[in-house]
Amino acid sequence: MSDELVLLSMWPSPFGLRVQIAFAEKRVEYEYKEEDLFNKSSLLLTVNPVHKKVPVLIHNGKAIYESLAIVEYIDEVWNDRSPLLPSDPCRRAEARFWADFVDKKAASKKVWRSKGEDQEEAKRELIEIFKVLEGELGDKPYFGGDNFGLVDIALVPFYSRFYTLDKFGNFSIEAECPVLVAWAKRCMKRESVFKSLPDSEKVYDFVLQVNKWFGIH
Amino acid sequence: MSDELVLLSMWPSPFGLRVQIAFAEKRVEYEYKEEDLFNKSSLLLTVNPVHKKVPVLIHNGKAIYESLAIVEYIDEVWNDRSPLLPSDPCRRAEARFWADFVDKKAASKKVWRSKGEDQEEAKRELIEIFKVLEGELGDKPYFGGDNFGLVDIALVPFYSRFYTLDKFGNFSIEAECPVLVAWAKRCMKRESVFKSLPDSEKVYDFVLQVNKWFGIH
Repeated sequence: MSDELVLLSMWPSPFGLRVQIAFAEKRVEYEYKEEDLFNKSSLLLTVNPVHKKVPVLIHNGKAIYESLAIVEYIDEVWNDRSPLLPSDPCRRAEARFWADFVDKKAASKKVWRSKGEDQEEAKRELIEIFKVLEGELGDKPYFGGDNFGLVDIALVPFYSRFYTLDKFGNFSIEAECPVLVAWAKRCMKRESVFKSLPDSEKVYDFVLQVNKWFGIH
Repeated sequence: MSDELVLLSMWPSPFGLRVQIAFAEKRVEYEYKEEDLFNKSSLLLTVNPVHKKVPVLIHNGKAIYESLAIVEYIDEVWNDRSPLLPSDPCRRAEARFWADFVDKKAASKKVWRSKGEDQEEAKRELIEIFKVLEGELGDKPYFGGDNFGLVDIALVPFYSRFYTLDKFGNFSIEAECPVLVAWAKRCMKRESVFKSLPDSEKVYDFVLQVNKWFGIH
């Protein structure tokens, strides 16, 4: 491979994990550079001056931002294998809608950033969102139907936070949303997912640390 | 045209306007159905049970949601004319990034929903976002370069709110961001845009009404 391909990310970032999973699905190799949340590299600040956020993919000197845009980019550039989006425009639009839904709704950190009634409300909200996703999944193996695709890639990184959510919220997402957790476990059987997702307890320790840094709890 | 093509929208919705502009660029005819913000139709609630929001495009019985996904859908289905996305994957990713930036940043209603210091802060924020967009535009005629495209379509509907923003904020977006307003005026010369965008004063009256309804000001 003669392409220069560098991914700037942080290991607990569900958004960076999307890119890692997409590359693994496509069997494309790349250089991974870990960023420090509290001390961002000059490379990151140079290539992403607008948001200063990970993930950023640098492909032959060109920077690409925003995880879903990067996943679509990967699907378009390496279009000879493992399609991540359906070919039918209507199903593509559907996939984009649900990936966006995950971004807007399922990424909430409220459960571990709040207490008392606010936290109860955050838990109710999250379960409601997960139930909507369960409804969309139905009895399909993946959100993409028989094929693991964009929506699966968008959502499954958040599975690494379920343990943290359970601990902080003192509830069980698996008990509340068994269909969603069964789907996540199905995804976890894929090499692209289980080799990418960080250990749940490591994520929990990281969240504890970040909460401490921000003076929460 | 034998396709059944129905757009559910509300006239002041910048998101619905995106779809109207995309169809006008493609010269595709469709049926437009106006929704009532305070009394949504059973059709809307049936076809978009998740968000219950406009715009929704119904194409031969299939519903497509979220304005940017709809615009990409239109570009994919009517791909024989007026491309709205570049063909190069890197430039496509760039366009998706900036369209998403517009969604996340430029759609703020804070200027007309706040007062005093909060409003001043909202004005500063908005101008800062517009300046970032001016930086991205540079000296290109359109965000898409020489071609009017996705980012232009994503952003230009908000131009119909500039008069309202000016009035509420007691400032002049044109004085603050002349490059952006020059771009908007350039877009307004396109039939697809000037025939779609509502009258600025009508938008202002609508916002006054909605604010009154919500008990703001």
